[in-house]
Amino acid sequence: MELGKRCIAEGIGTFWLVFGGCGSAVLAAMFAAPMDGTSVNLGIGFVGVSFAFGLTVLTMAYAIGHISGCHLNPAVSAGLVAGGRFPMKEFFPYVVSQVVGALAGAAVLYVIASGKNGFSLSGGFASNGYGEHSPGQYSILACFVAEVVLTFMFLMIILGATDRRAPAGFAPIAIGLGLTLIHLIGIPITNLSVNPARSTGPAVFVQGWALMQLWMFWVAPILGAVIAGVVYKTCFDTKPENA
Amino acid sequence: MELGKRCIAEGIGTFWLVFGGCGSAVLAAMFAAPMDGTSVNLGIGFVGVSFAFGLTVLTMAYAIGHISGCHLNPAVSAGLVAGGRFPMKEFFPYVVSQVVGALAGAAVLYVIASGKNGFSLSGGFASNGYGEHSPGQYSILACFVAEVVLTFMFLMIILGATDRRAPAGFAPIAIGLGLTLIHLIGIPITNLSVNPARSTGPAVFVQGWALMQLWMFWVAPILGAVIAGVVYKTCFDTKPENA
Amino acid sequence: MELGKRCIAEGIGTFWLVFGGCGSAVLAAMFAAPMDGTSVNLGIGFVGVSFAFGLTVLTMAYAIGHISGCHLNPAVSAGLVAGGRFPMKEFFPYVVSQVVGALAGAAVLYVIASGKNGFSLSGGFASNGYGEHSPGQYSILACFVAEVVLTFMFLMIILGATDRRAPAGFAPIAIGLGLTLIHLIGIPITNLSVNPARSTGPAVFVQGWALMQLWMFWVAPILGAVIAGVVYKTCFDTKPENA
Amino acid sequence: MELGKRCIAEGIGTFWLVFGGCGSAVLAAMFAAPMDGTSVNLGIGFVGVSFAFGLTVLTMAYAIGHISGCHLNPAVSAGLVAGGRFPMKEFFPYVVSQVVGALAGAAVLYVIASGKNGFSLSGGFASNGYGEHSPGQYSILACFVAEVVLTFMFLMIILGATDRRAPAGFAPIAIGLGLTLIHLIGIPITNLSVNPARSTGPAVFVQGWALMQLWMFWVAPILGAVIAGVVYKTCFDTKPENA
Repeated sequence: MELGKRCIAEGIGTFWLVFGGCGSAVLAAMFAAPMDGTSVNLGIGFVGVSFAFGLTVLTMAYAIGHISGCHLNPAVSAGLVAGGRFPMKEFFPYVVSQVVGALAGAAVLYVIASGKNGFSLSGGFASNGYGEHSPGQYSILACFVAEVVLTFMFLMIILGATDRRAPAGFAPIAIGLGLTLIHLIGIPITNLSVNPARSTGPAVFVQGWALMQLWMFWVAPILGAVIAGVVYKTCFDTKPENA
Repeated sequence: MELGKRCIAEGIGTFWLVFGGCGSAVLAAMFAAPMDGTSVNLGIGFVGVSFAFGLTVLTMAYAIGHISGCHLNPAVSAGLVAGGRFPMKEFFPYVVSQVVGALAGAAVLYVIASGKNGFSLSGGFASNGYGEHSPGQYSILACFVAEVVLTFMFLMIILGATDRRAPAGFAPIAIGLGLTLIHLIGIPITNLSVNPARSTGPAVFVQGWALMQLWMFWVAPILGAVIAGVVYKTCFDTKPENA
Repeated sequence: MELGKRCIAEGIGTFWLVFGGCGSAVLAAMFAAPMDGTSVNLGIGFVGVSFAFGLTVLTMAYAIGHISGCHLNPAVSAGLVAGGRFPMKEFFPYVVSQVVGALAGAAVLYVIASGKNGFSLSGGFASNGYGEHSPGQYSILACFVAEVVLTFMFLMIILGATDRRAPAGFAPIAIGLGLTLIHLIGIPITNLSVNPARSTGPAVFVQGWALMQLWMFWVAPILGAVIAGVVYKTCFDTKPENA
Repeated sequence: MELGKRCIAEGIGTFWLVFGGCGSAVLAAMFAAPMDGTSVNLGIGFVGVSFAFGLTVLTMAYAIGHISGCHLNPAVSAGLVAGGRFPMKEFFPYVVSQVVGALAGAAVLYVIASGKNGFSLSGGFASNGYGEHSPGQYSILACFVAEVVLTFMFLMIILGATDRRAPAGFAPIAIGLGLTLIHLIGIPITNLSVNPARSTGPAVFVQGWALMQLWMFWVAPILGAVIAGVVYKTCFDTKPENA
């Protein structure tokens, strides 16, 4: 299918990743309800947010995988280029589409979230951060290492599950639930990115610290992804070019 | 298979969606248990309700997908008509079957739920609502936008995952877990509909505000679904008619 | 494969269903941990127990489905006989194997659970009950209706997902997650049976009320299952005998 | 593929199992957040940790299953040898790779976890233990029985789901979610091992009691796995050698 239509698919898919993933965190992570004279949380917590992020990818991979390959993530596109699975000349059009989709996702989320009294962007709007803006106040080094390692493993899953030798049709399950797993591990560290487009969407709305810390969520994921592309190609590919 | 039998399947399936999805919310979302001198909630919360709704669709899509296509939702039928996947002349029989099934689901749920002391329909009976009847008191605009956008994406998942080019057999997983994802995002907004039949079932029992607000849960989901049908057909179909 | 080996598989599988499902409830539903001067529950709650029951069936259906068909449940065997999918002459050997496996599962669970100070069978040992022994004190009528309806739908899922026209290989996912769904709806009602063997295992250890109420968890599930077998065969089978 | 590359795959996979599984427990199980004047846990609890462990295996089985078979566990390798599915002469290279990967996973987790103020290895670092080091203070007998039985059933799932007669491509789902199920049952007993490499990783960092109790998490899982290999081969294999 022509590049333009594939870019539309990437934009819609990344819209869904940001709207659905960040939306679940902003709208539904906490929901107080009275019970036996105390308050309990009926909201979805980090388990629900982890499933939400993963299921955006699982659903889109089945819905648009046959159209665009369903990257939804500049780090994924970069890792696939490094692994010899995606042509460099289509990298930038894909990344632009992903970032536009992410901004649209954050914008629609803002429209909905601000329809509730008391909403404020100062709650973070699901932005990623390190140091004092890490949810669990993890150091900048811990955050950087986590983003590199988790993106490395995310790309290993993607490169392995889409290998010609892996069973056909199952890759979206492995990749989507892989992103769920990555969130189960890492939300307390950086609020979890592994995806520069996902980080950019809310940061543009929050501004200030979120924009100042945004560099890490471009550098670390892309670094981890490129290493994975090289490692998989070097160690596990049976032929150097199995595009 | 003849239309009558397919309508029976749609009725049973929508019964299951309403009985199971709304039932999980009414019966099991909150269950107080004593622990260390305080009360904790052993109930399933919004995460469990989200999985319940999604799994009603996943299970029925494998059980009756080969019989009726397993729409279970007037918005889905409408979106498939708009996308050129379902004949207009079968639209109304399907919708009638879905609404009858939804009413039966709500009725059986009422029989069971009222078997517990202290049960009252004033708890909402899992009805959908906006404004002061939104679980999180979201504005009517936020609620309308959320229902349109979430149904749009639900239909994108359905149209994409059932495309001839997508891997065969996996669509029920993508669609069912897609509905789980949609609930993870949106229960606090409208109690989440994206399905006019699902909204109608409990509203008929609750009456009053639930019936007065019911219009939105017919208009918004069908609007979002039809837009998705047109967008998918225009942008991603390789041939205009791939019914 | 010969009947004897298939019965061994049914026994091992039903052992797993009772040990794993009831075990998750007895051992892991509640686990108090200190946090910020209060106690929080790190345990798995009803969501975790629901996944545990469903995953025992999903895992066994892939592990022994090709050996015995993986019924693990006298109601399932009965429904398959009624639906023309399983020969009546093998019904009783299957049921005996299932009950023996269930008793073994409860016995091993007892050995482990009693290895913790303060364990007592008076906590219920995951037995099923109605009325004053219903977890949420539901009436006998509500409990009976719930068990009939939920088993009916369980069998509709099984009969549909294993139909020749359904996609091959996916039935264990539909059936296993279907049992998860059923638990998400119904644990507060009867602690959820839909399986006479599963109910018999812990009841034999708890004795007293659990044995006196055991009749319902044989009658209601088998009734619901047989109705489903007849309905599916009558409405949806293309040929009367598609064993 | 040559043994060296397969060992690299086993090392990366076991790195992921320990980093992801133990990491989810150490980093994310508990996360306090203020709500209505009290503190609630937004962290993932035992449900999230169970999914994390299982998803490390599900994702790796799709990613490297076609490379190394994805054992990630000395008990699995031992059970496959006993079941006639894996050559004894490759057992030790696989085990060494698994242990090295597990140590690397624990090391990277240590780097990240220690980037938060107040982190201490005295919290256990997700080590396995029995008696006074069992999370729920279960007796040594209960812990030993649990590890043997749960590993036995884990291997029955693996041997069954990878049988030539089982549907192709689904084994990673059965095996990964099987490990999730096993954790849903058993975290309170021993913190759940069924995998000597997984136990060795954190124990080397915690030292003291964790190393002194490590013997059980080599002996019990391997014992359970070997019994399963023999039982499956004896009862269910149609030909003795179906490697």
